[in-house]
Parts: sequence; structure tokens; C-alpha cells
Amino acid sequence: MEGTIASKRIEIRDLLQGQHTGAQVTAMGWVRNKRESKNVFFFTLNDGSCLQALQVVADPAQTPEEVLRKISVGAALAVSGQLVASQGKGQSVELQATDIRILGEADPEKYPLQPKKHSLEFLREIAHLRMRTNTFGAIFRIRHHLQFAIHQFFNERGFFNLHTPIITASDAEGAGEMFQVTTLDLKNPPRTPEGEIDYKQDFFERSTNLTVSGQLEGELGALALGKIYTFGPTFRAENSNTSRHLAEFWMIEPEMAFYELEDNMDLAEDMLKYVIRYALEHCAEDLEFLAQRAEEEEKQKPQQERSEMGLLQRLQFVLEHPFERLSYTEAIEILRNSQHNRKKKFQYLIEAWGTDLQSEHERYLVEKHFKKPVILYNYPAAIKSFYMRLNEDGKTVGAMDILFPGIGEIVGGSQREERYQELKERAKSMGIEEEAIAWYLETRQFGTVPHSGFGLGFERLMLFVTGMTNIRDVIAFPRFPGSAEF
Amino acid sequence: MEGTIASKRIEIRDLLQGQHTGAQVTAMGWVRNKRESKNVFFFTLNDGSCLQALQVVADPAQTPEEVLRKISVGAALAVSGQLVASQGKGQSVELQATDIRILGEADPEKYPLQPKKHSLEFLREIAHLRMRTNTFGAIFRIRHHLQFAIHQFFNERGFFNLHTPIITASDAEGAGEMFQVTTLDLKNPPRTPEGEIDYKQDFFERSTNLTVSGQLEGELGALALGKIYTFGPTFRAENSNTSRHLAEFWMIEPEMAFYELEDNMDLAEDMLKYVIRYALEHCAEDLEFLAQRAEEEEKQKPQQERSEMGLLQRLQFVLEHPFERLSYTEAIEILRNSQHNRKKKFQYLIEAWGTDLQSEHERYLVEKHFKKPVILYNYPAAIKSFYMRLNEDGKTVGAMDILFPGIGEIVGGSQREERYQELKERAKSMGIEEEAIAWYLETRQFGTVPHSGFGLGFERLMLFVTGMTNIRDVIAFPRFPGSAEF
Repeated sequence: MEGTIASKRIEIRDLLQGQHTGAQVTAMGWVRNKRESKNVFFFTLNDGSCLQALQVVADPAQTPEEVLRKISVGAALAVSGQLVASQGKGQSVELQATDIRILGEADPEKYPLQPKKHSLEFLREIAHLRMRTNTFGAIFRIRHHLQFAIHQFFNERGFFNLHTPIITASDAEGAGEMFQVTTLDLKNPPRTPEGEIDYKQDFFERSTNLTVSGQLEGELGALALGKIYTFGPTFRAENSNTSRHLAEFWMIEPEMAFYELEDNMDLAEDMLKYVIRYALEHCAEDLEFLAQRAEEEEKQKPQQERSEMGLLQRLQFVLEHPFERLSYTEAIEILRNSQHNRKKKFQYLIEAWGTDLQSEHERYLVEKHFKKPVILYNYPAAIKSFYMRLNEDGKTVGAMDILFPGIGEIVGGSQREERYQELKERAKSMGIEEEAIAWYLETRQFGTVPHSGFGLGFERLMLFVTGMTNIRDVIAFPRFPGSAEF
Repeated sequence: MEGTIASKRIEIRDLLQGQHTGAQVTAMGWVRNKRESKNVFFFTLNDGSCLQALQVVADPAQTPEEVLRKISVGAALAVSGQLVASQGKGQSVELQATDIRILGEADPEKYPLQPKKHSLEFLREIAHLRMRTNTFGAIFRIRHHLQFAIHQFFNERGFFNLHTPIITASDAEGAGEMFQVTTLDLKNPPRTPEGEIDYKQDFFERSTNLTVSGQLEGELGALALGKIYTFGPTFRAENSNTSRHLAEFWMIEPEMAFYELEDNMDLAEDMLKYVIRYALEHCAEDLEFLAQRAEEEEKQKPQQERSEMGLLQRLQFVLEHPFERLSYTEAIEILRNSQHNRKKKFQYLIEAWGTDLQSEHERYLVEKHFKKPVILYNYPAAIKSFYMRLNEDGKTVGAMDILFPGIGEIVGGSQREERYQELKERAKSMGIEEEAIAWYLETRQFGTVPHSGFGLGFERLMLFVTGMTNIRDVIAFPRFPGSAEF
């Protein structure tokens, strides 16, 4: 085979670094903008490798009319020429084209991404193309770097990645509604003599669902390998058509043997700081672009609703301050005695210990009272899951939630109940059948140890880091009620 | 809060490194073996951080009888004492216990993992515990390192990780049977006036399935961000109860704009060599253990069925030799003229050009003829998918499969058909409705470019690297017909 086109091409990110200046190079990418005058034809080329587009200068007299006509926004080109230092502002180098090849045209009458501001709503409908915009290019490059930072964080600390199952017959988490997975013919499913669906004839010979969490299986891993983490898709069939819920989202769930609640909090705080620092170091250009974008959005808001800090400041602030750690009981005291509560500004007033906190309370603590990330721990047992470890007081469990400004709960975790009898009783009292979790209970009979873990919602982290406000804008192809496009 | 147990503990991997020798330390883990004599009590402790267990020496006279009684295989202990250089063979250091605390007992009458050889079949049934064995501990530590190596490989090369959707309404891949995802009540699903299932009332307002591949969505990413890769679960509802098929497995699918078929082959070969080299460097102890295990398995086989190379040799061999690249047409010639074909030793004899290759033919090429990994390319269009690029000859497509000894196809990829008309016609001729892939076709109308990609089955790679022979042994909780345990 002869040399391929890729072998001759240099990525635009590399061309902009400077070391190729003066050389004959070939760039390939998509036209982002163009501008022409009598004597000169300018356009910019983006290949996705970075935010910035490469400026190309062509001589209309030297370029076939037919080629010039096809250089429109969205068209794909291969351009060869000399890379030179640029005189213009906004770019350090520019490519003086001597050869322009049209790889793929984009009819300006039909191509939906013209160089003007498109609404996020419009772009959501063309998710197959929106990654070609500056905003979504930045978002998905950052998404990559954040996921890599997470893997690197855990790898450096000796954690083992574990792929917990997606299809599961376990429903012990009981975390809301689940999607059923089946190969039965819905039009005419097999039935038992009693008229029930005969799941013995389904693919797995039982009823199965999409997982809502890999935690229970993650614990099995931790009780063998010591420290594990999952990074995989999880599912909720909740009919929530909001900017904060997805039916399919990605979670990171570390589980650690020999970790108590405090170790768990330390790890979660370290991890969040590590990945935010990583993003600041590796995504500076994209973050600056999104920060500017967010700032312009802020200007549309009334003065009192605007953030005190810009996006970059907010990220920096999180790095520089220890998270505030306080117990649920202390939080209830603060909330109950707050002006906000006394003046009945909360929709749900805080009266007695034991009530679950609403998003308005969490936001008050984080955004008004402490003005920084908060770790709340030791929640009432009655409002938390069966697997959380009962404290000495007999009424709270070793749970911990991390609350972020503008986001609310970004991490939820706990020390797990490692005592066989206590776990069995808690499960029973919450209506979970023993045989459904027999394998989970067994780990408490054979060499049980104190252990802990937490879950991080990856898209919530993405919202915080990118400054975007709708969760459908930080995952490539969002799934929500009524929508499973692409 | 007071100091947690984790803050006092040192992981066994670190204790074995040597820098703690002479110090007072605390180790925690699970008992793997024990042995007692009148004056001394030995046991080994494993905490999952590495294969090797730490030898602990206790003085029966100084240890409470009640504690000694509970030191049984599988029990969890916290042991403090001095770490000293060991006189015995098999270990460099040992822990002279001064304090032993039982964290969790394991009743020897009930704990299934006693120190004897358990069959893989038996261990598969207790997948919640099997990661505590040497074999499965090694496998899942290697699995972690391989997945990290894959992320690092792509990150170093400027690829962006893309999370393609798991739930999809797209069935354009047409790659066999799919799992349906629904929230409809199977007992009484809503129906249209015509008696069909009324999917308008399902969660996504249409019929949805679990993805069989992220490729088509991956291409959308590549045509915006340049180079992307996916690493996620994929699903096949095939009723294959074999040692080579899973209903749920993990795939890595890179897609690259401006890559032609040859670039695609180069990337796949580089990637495989990179991750195998990474495993050799980062998993030496675990790989040596599995190599020894495989060698013992080999001894059970008749002489002529034994591998010529051991596991480590095989891995090394792949690194040191370029993969053999040949076209389908050349492969057919070799097979047709082979002694094997002439003597009718193939179950399916090779007669005419155009026939699909069976596993026996692939194995012949890889294991008998070339004795190394083979990349086959330019397959007949008729036996390959609609999205593969039609070659100039009009009868072959730019497909490429990588075949590994003992594994068969480990990578399958192609240059994608980037020409709108050709793609539309190929889809039509294969019975794919245009509107089902309208979004995919659009990318060929707006700035289309040559591009390529491939898929790597992660569990197939795991089989090759670990030397295991049943795919159910290289994923933590395998899903196959009739089984969705844990």
C-alpha cells in the first residue's frame, strides 16, 4: 500500500505548539469560519484535537474557483503549505496554503451548524453534530481528561478497577425504579399455569434488570482484592424530566477493605481535589473558554442570582480549602436556628431531628452558611440504606454525603455494616429478603472486616467542572423519558 | 474522631518491598494457610494487594488460646509486631506477631475456600468468593492493569474517551440478537388499537435495546473530535453456552478521522503490543503464577495438544514479531492449497473465493501456517457489514481482522464507508432502513472524511494474557444463558 493520508498529516494541536513553524505541513480538519477579500481568502480549520482552529491563508488567484466555492463552514479539507508566524492577532501561526483538497463538502443551505450562536436546546436535538461546536468540543475533551484522571488517581493508590455487572437479578439496592432486561416476546410472553410471566423461559431464566449501582458487587471485590473501584454505566427508570436527572449515567464507586468512615471521607476529598487539579492543568484552554461562556450566561441573570465566583475561581477555591465536615445533627442545629428557617423561607421547615434534608437545605449549608464544599456524616438510620453501618448511638449510621455549591450531592457513601447480625436485621427491617442477598450476607460470615465506599456521579462532577447547568449537555447522547436518539 | 484502623495499617505489597524491615508494623488481611507446632505458630496473611502472602510467626505461649483457635483459613486478622528478615525460604520478610486481633472469623466447617485445589467450575459458582483465591486474585489484578494500559495508550496518543450509549433505539448494526430494555408491565402491556405493543407508552416512547456496539456513535465522535475510543459494556442475546461467549462483555472501540485501513492496522498492532508489554512490566508476579498454572494444566493434555510455548514466552513472542498481514484473497489461496484442505481435514473445505472463514481456518493460518498473529484484510463485501468501505475492485471492503493464536479473532475493524451514495446503497442492499440511520448518513453529507476504527473484545485479550481458557473466568460476574447471579 502507498502512504496513507494520515501519515502526512500533523494534528492542529501540534501545529499550534510552534515547533513546526517554517515547515511545509499538511493539516486536515473542518472549516469553522471563512472571510474573503479581493486579494486574500482566510479560513480557520479545526480537527477536534484542541479548541483553537488553525488560520489558513489562501491566494484566490492561485486557488481554483471550484475549490474556493466549496470552502464553506463544515466542509472537510486537507491543506498543504508553509506554516508561518502570524502577523494577525488571535493566533501565533498561520498556514499559507499552496494546495487545498476538498475531502467532504457541507452545503451551506443544509448544514445546521452555521457560525452563529445556537441554543443549547437546538444543539441537544442534533447531538450527532453538536460535538463539532466549540462548546461541546471543550466539554467532551474535558470529559475525557476527567475520566482519565479518575483512573490515574485510583491506579496510583493501588486500587483495582472492577467491572461489576450491568445486567443483574439483584434488586437489593431498592434505589427506585429499574429497567427490565428481557428477550421474551412482549406480544405473547410465556406464562406459568397461574398466569404469571414465566421468567424461567427468559434468557437468564429469571427476571433481570439494569443495575442501579455496582456497590454490592464492589464490596465482594474489596473483601478479596482490598481496594477496588468501578467506573461504569448505571440506570434509573425514574420519570424525572429535569436538568439534573438522566436515565443512564456513569458512576465511580470505590470500595475499600479496612477503611472506616473517616478514611472514606479523606479518600473522597482527595479524589475530588486530584481530578479538579488535573483538569485545571490539562484542560486550561477549554476551561477558559467555558469560563468565559459561563460569565456571559451570568450576565443575562438578575444581579442577586449571579455567582460570586467565576468558573476557574470556583475550581481553584475547592482545591484550596478543606471541605467542612459536620454531622447531620450539627447541620440540623444550624438549619433550625438559621434566619432562613425562622423567617420560613425554606419550603420544608426544619423542625425535628430525623427529617431528611432537601436540596434547599443542602444548598443553604454549602452556598450561604459555609460557602464551601461540605461533608455531612452520621445520618439518621431511618432515612438511609440497609447496608450502612449502625453507630454506637443505635440511631445514626456512618453515612457521608459530599455537597458541592451549585450541584448539591456529588458523592454519597458510608462505612458498610460488616457485622452479620446487624446487617441481617437491618435488611429484614427494610423488607429485603434474606435469600436475595445471601451471597452478600456470606461475606460477613467469612472473614468480615470494617470497610467503606462511596459513589461519585460522573455527570454531576462534569457539571461542576464545566459550569454547564443541564446534565444533558455533559454526556454525549443523553437518555431521559421519551428520548433515546442516536 | 480517633485514628482509624486504616491509618495504622501498611499494605502487604508494601511490607514485602523491604523498606519496612526492622520496624513495628500492623498488617491486616485474610489467613491463607496455617501450620502449628509445639513452640511456634505460623500463618500467612493476604490482603489482595499482591499475590504473595505475608508470613506471620506467633508464639503460642504468648497468644491467648481463644485467639489461636480463631486463626483459621479465611479469617480476617489485624496483626502487629516487628517485621524481620526471614530465615525460611519462600519469603524475604516475616512478621513476628506481638498482637493479633480477630476482625472476622471463618468457620472451617462452612468456609468453602479451604487450602486445596478447587475446580474452576466449582469456583464459578461462588464468584462472590473466588477473587480470594490466588488464581482469581491474579486474574483480576491483571484485568485492572490491562484496562489502565488501554486508557493510558489512548490518552498518550491524544484520543478522547467517549461514553457511547448503552440503551439504544438503533439496531442498524444488526449483529445478532439483542436484549430488550423496557419499563412496560410484561403481564399486561399497553397495546395499540391494532393489538401491537404500544411502545409510545414505554419509558423512551419507543422500543429500545442494549447496545451491541458503540461504533456508529463513536464515528460521530471521531468526525468532531478527531480520535476517540470507547471502553464500555456491550451485549449479545445469543443463546451460546460456550467457553468463548458472554451475554455481557466489555469492548474497546477506537474511531479515527483521517485514518485509512493501513493506519488502522498499525494502531491496532501498536495497541496490542503496548498493553501486553505493560502487563509483562506491571504484573510479573501474577503472570508468573498463571504461567505455572497453565503449565500444570498443559501436562494433563496429550503430547500433541500441548502448546509449544509457555504463557510468558507466548506474550514475549507477540511483542517481538510484526503481525503477518495478508489479504483475504491471499489467505484463501494458502488455505485452498494447504495439505489440510487437500486431505479434507477441515470440516468446511475451502473451495471458492467469497466463502466466510471459519474458526478452524483462522486457527490454521495463525497456529500452523504463520505461527504468529495475523492481520487479514480486504474481505468480500458480501460477508461484511454495510458500513465498511468498498474497495476499487467493487467486490471487497476495507475490513481487517486480527487473529491471535488460541483465541481467534481478537480485533475486528475496517475503514468506514465515507461516501454518501455508496453508504446509502450498501445499507439499502442489506435491508437497513434509511431513516433508522439518518443521523449516521448525515455525517457523510456534512464534511465527510476518510476514517477508520476497530473493536477489541476485552475478555478475549484477557484470555490471551492470562492463559485462561474459559471466558467466564476472566470477568468477575459472567452473564450467560440461564445465569445472572450476584
